[in-house]
Amino acid sequence: MALGKDYATQACCIARALEVVGERWSLLVVRDAFYGVRRYNDFLGHLGIPRAVLATRLQSLTQAGVLEKHSYQESPPREEYLLTELGRELWPTLRALSVWGQNLIDNGPVYIFSHLDCGTDLGEYGECPRCAIAVPAQDVQMRPGPGTPGNPDNPVSRALLSPHRLLEPLLNDQQA
Amino acid sequence: MALGKDYATQACCIARALEVVGERWSLLVVRDAFYGVRRYNDFLGHLGIPRAVLATRLQSLTQAGVLEKHSYQESPPREEYLLTELGRELWPTLRALSVWGQNLIDNGPVYIFSHLDCGTDLGEYGECPRCAIAVPAQDVQMRPGPGTPGNPDNPVSRALLSPHRLLEPLLNDQQA
Repeated sequence: MALGKDYATQACCIARALEVVGERWSLLVVRDAFYGVRRYNDFLGHLGIPRAVLATRLQSLTQAGVLEKHSYQESPPREEYLLTELGRELWPTLRALSVWGQNLIDNGPVYIFSHLDCGTDLGEYGECPRCAIAVPAQDVQMRPGPGTPGNPDNPVSRALLSPHRLLEPLLNDQQA
Repeated sequence: MALGKDYATQACCIARALEVVGERWSLLVVRDAFYGVRRYNDFLGHLGIPRAVLATRLQSLTQAGVLEKHSYQESPPREEYLLTELGRELWPTLRALSVWGQNLIDNGPVYIFSHLDCGTDLGEYGECPRCAIAVPAQDVQMRPGPGTPGNPDNPVSRALLSPHRLLEPLLNDQQA
């Protein structure tokens, strides 16, 4: 059944948000951007989705102002995708969804998130229980949890076997 | 392009959560359940979606343990849908999505949420700034905000022109 992308009858902020990030795979693309994935082939390898879907999602997230393209190579021209300030404000949503999703899995979380400044694991609402502040994404450190697959088949998952600060570029060749 | 409902290659909690609530309209059905909508016709009138889509979403959310059916009439048999404890734990996700969605609209929020006990408007992370606690859905009061349409065309939106406690049945005939 074909359903349009917008929610024309719904005036609310939630409906508006879902028009931008509610399409299939969109929030997983945004999640990867928080993990530091920036390049098409890295998204592709980690997400394992059809190329056309990834290209469409990157384009619509860019048009909506959630991602922005930056050139990292001139010849041939190559671009990478970074979260904008608007995009980075999706962290509380992803964090809440991740906490809720832990109800649905058996293994424990794939990744554990902590406050970079003090090392304390984040609380249920994305707060640092020790510092009593809401921790923005750039101050969050992630590390593998009990649900992490032991032998990942793609470079992104392998890189995430080491502790990593959110939003920092993930793979070595992206740190140039 | 047909995309399956699951994210087989994605082990993470966010992907698992999206398998349950990531389908189109699902989170708006859950939102309505937080607002106190319980009956098929009320969801239908408020959401304005095709009957088949609503029926499928109610069924899959029930199968996933987010909603549960309760009989409220025996002859003819009639059932209503209530959030389970698992479903009620989606409040932080909806709250975060709603806060983010405010970036995307011009009018200001359709509804404003406050802590029932003290009347203080919720902060950005769903906390009560005065009591310094994360406020669970059952302790949240909603009231119309600047973005509320003046003359709503359906009973749910009309009922929500008055302040209302989340999760309490919304329409008068549901309070029997």
